[in-house]
Amino acid sequence: MEFKDFYGYVLNSSIESYDEIPYKVEKVHFKKGDIITRYGQVEDSIYYMNNGIVEMSIKSYMSEKVIDFFFNNELFCGFTSFLKQEPTDVQIVALVDSTIERIQREGLYKAYETSFAANKFGRICTEHGYIRKSDREKELLTKTAEERYAELFRTKSQYISQIPVNKVAKYLGIHPESLSRIRKKMSF
Amino acid sequence: MEFKDFYGYVLNSSIESYDEIPYKVEKVHFKKGDIITRYGQVEDSIYYMNNGIVEMSIKSYMSEKVIDFFFNNELFCGFTSFLKQEPTDVQIVALVDSTIERIQREGLYKAYETSFAANKFGRICTEHGYIRKSDREKELLTKTAEERYAELFRTKSQYISQIPVNKVAKYLGIHPESLSRIRKKMSF
Repeated sequence: MEFKDFYGYVLNSSIESYDEIPYKVEKVHFKKGDIITRYGQVEDSIYYMNNGIVEMSIKSYMSEKVIDFFFNNELFCGFTSFLKQEPTDVQIVALVDSTIERIQREGLYKAYETSFAANKFGRICTEHGYIRKSDREKELLTKTAEERYAELFRTKSQYISQIPVNKVAKYLGIHPESLSRIRKKMSF
Repeated sequence: MEFKDFYGYVLNSSIESYDEIPYKVEKVHFKKGDIITRYGQVEDSIYYMNNGIVEMSIKSYMSEKVIDFFFNNELFCGFTSFLKQEPTDVQIVALVDSTIERIQREGLYKAYETSFAANKFGRICTEHGYIRKSDREKELLTKTAEERYAELFRTKSQYISQIPVNKVAKYLGIHPESLSRIRKKMSF
């Protein structure tokens, strides 16, 4: 799905052309390993994944933690940095060659001043981002690594083989050896 | 601050009367200990705190965890339940007698169909909710209980004495005895 179709889907209206979207959307390509958003940068874009996988990680004192993966037809960016215009503490890296659409903040915020559709789309997408964050918080508070792996496998099985094991372990907050044990136990 | 002033503040426009808000807002009162949103209920309202404190908790297998407190001039509700219209896994309880304004979902969603201002206000408030969730996730991943207590004390010192120690300990995810040690160490 292209961004224009996603935009129409969310607003429940048919969008024929990018001209009907009140801000600029541009196609960008990233190679496997490319850094899309770097630690400390002020996020100035929102990204829509056409085809690919990115990981989002966060730095803490001792180590780096993977906090999320994003797949086809998902929006992503260092969103708190984007909103507050402060340096981001997350980093976004392409895990495979990825085709992405980019919306720059300036155009989006100009549209927010006057466009009903832009605000409605922004509200609904932010609501989904909120649900995602909230689910993640609940997982961290109430689920074991094993349950969280089972959940990731259940919802994202078509992608999981493309993510290096050590990245999945970092996401679950466990050692790669523990993940191997979990995978064996679950006979995957 | 009343909800109408908060609404005007967020939209950066002056609101003289509740008639200018495109949905109904009604004043409600809760006594200390009253359950505002109950586990398993489908959330049908968003609340704005005029004066009081509520706690939000979540049930896990073994125990109940306090995940947030809300104070004056803050919006709260079982937001994922409100958005998905599924039973909520959080519970909201008044910690002191509280005066609150309530917005019911039906009126809000009717306004969302046509009102630019309602969508803009909803988008901005949801963005703030997202930032709050995101900060909380970062805290859970990277900060010790001691640092999280210091943060709570720094930002909410005017309220913290009104919250029972065992609730604060539940929020930090530690035993009340550990919190006592932290408090002594920090000489509060």
